[in-house]
Amino acid sequence: MEEQQNSNAPASVIEGRNAVMEAYRAGRTIDKLFVQDGCQDGPVTSIKRAAAKQGTQIKYVGKDRLDQLSETGKHQGVIAYAAAYRYAEVAELLAAAEQKGEPPFLILLDNIEDPHNLGAIIRTANLAGAHGVIIPKNRAVGLTATVARTSAGALNFTPVAKVTNLVQTIEDLKKKGLWFVCADMKGTPMYELDLKGAVGLVIGSEGEGVGRLVREKCDFAAAIPMKGQIDSLNASVATGVLAYEIVRQRIVC
Amino acid sequence: MEEQQNSNAPASVIEGRNAVMEAYRAGRTIDKLFVQDGCQDGPVTSIKRAAAKQGTQIKYVGKDRLDQLSETGKHQGVIAYAAAYRYAEVAELLAAAEQKGEPPFLILLDNIEDPHNLGAIIRTANLAGAHGVIIPKNRAVGLTATVARTSAGALNFTPVAKVTNLVQTIEDLKKKGLWFVCADMKGTPMYELDLKGAVGLVIGSEGEGVGRLVREKCDFAAAIPMKGQIDSLNASVATGVLAYEIVRQRIVC
Repeated sequence: MEEQQNSNAPASVIEGRNAVMEAYRAGRTIDKLFVQDGCQDGPVTSIKRAAAKQGTQIKYVGKDRLDQLSETGKHQGVIAYAAAYRYAEVAELLAAAEQKGEPPFLILLDNIEDPHNLGAIIRTANLAGAHGVIIPKNRAVGLTATVARTSAGALNFTPVAKVTNLVQTIEDLKKKGLWFVCADMKGTPMYELDLKGAVGLVIGSEGEGVGRLVREKCDFAAAIPMKGQIDSLNASVATGVLAYEIVRQRIVC
Repeated sequence: MEEQQNSNAPASVIEGRNAVMEAYRAGRTIDKLFVQDGCQDGPVTSIKRAAAKQGTQIKYVGKDRLDQLSETGKHQGVIAYAAAYRYAEVAELLAAAEQKGEPPFLILLDNIEDPHNLGAIIRTANLAGAHGVIIPKNRAVGLTATVARTSAGALNFTPVAKVTNLVQTIEDLKKKGLWFVCADMKGTPMYELDLKGAVGLVIGSEGEGVGRLVREKCDFAAAIPMKGQIDSLNASVATGVLAYEIVRQRIVC
């Protein structure tokens, strides 16, 4: 199920020095770059410089690991994972809300790692009328072909922005009038919160929930009532339940 | 990701004539039985008889397919997929509600085929306080090890019943005072329905929604508001959104 190629998407695994350098020159977004430990020659240095400029996460690994990742057997010490889709800028998400004459409704994901969950969340964002999804650059899955497929087409309509620092992005958006609510089991029951304004809904990672620094920036913590014995809902289900409480309040209240 | 073995669960793939016959003798639930085309000798006939008695779905396939499915290389013309967990009776689900002094809240799945969706739905059922999940015997995934894993432990608490005929089960449960609401894009917006009584929530398959015969038995059709461009939510997300509308009405209204 991993990284299957969507027939319309360009190749997402790029191998070899020329091919990777070409991808950077063409302006493609590289989500992750694997470089062989100890490679320091000219072409590799140029690639690392391009990676630094774009802010790509670089992982240094042994030759064995690269051989294992390689599909062509000709990686020459570099393998790049390109996004299957273009990332949007945060400003485009706000512009989409303005164009519709609606208060912004954004979904921010604090390190979702499962591509099926990310795809399902983008699908939910589309149908709940959110104006976009924001994901962090590191420690999270990007817009891979699996994400595109599980989004069931939503990636063609709902923009996804990738940011370096989620805390900074929240601060910037607060200045534009958004307030933030994070999913938190210990928060206020979601039905008791007023979720009708310009809002950013923050969802944590599958295992750890919303990180401390991000949580501290949020204005409210919303709890989904839990009546069972286990710990937590699946991350994409929790996003759906909270996003639709926002929809309900916007429609009904 | 398929069928990884849960460390506590017994083996779910059983190969060879003796092993499969033993599983039937031990009373294990076999979700699906593969038999090699043309196999008609005594032991295979006994297995087919045991399968008919339990109502196991039998698939007749060529030797190539069995060789492909086989993990041991010694299938002798039969491979059985056993449930990783015990199925409950529908009566146990109602007893669970009665014991808690709550009106029954059941979730019925009309042919969910993706084990990750079934696992996530059982997880949601647990946390939304549903008293159990009902799945049909044919054309749907059973309680495999993947389902157990993605249920995040919920299978240990939330009973799952498997029935031969979902339409018949709905009729029987109506006589016990339950009424039924199915997920349907063309239905009444869910906020306008009264979902507080003894209720069965019916969710359709990923591709086709709720089947016609099942839909006709339902008292109401509930629509989740759809504001986007794509067709439908992921099945487990849709279940979460509808189940939590039931929770909300039970808590707030």
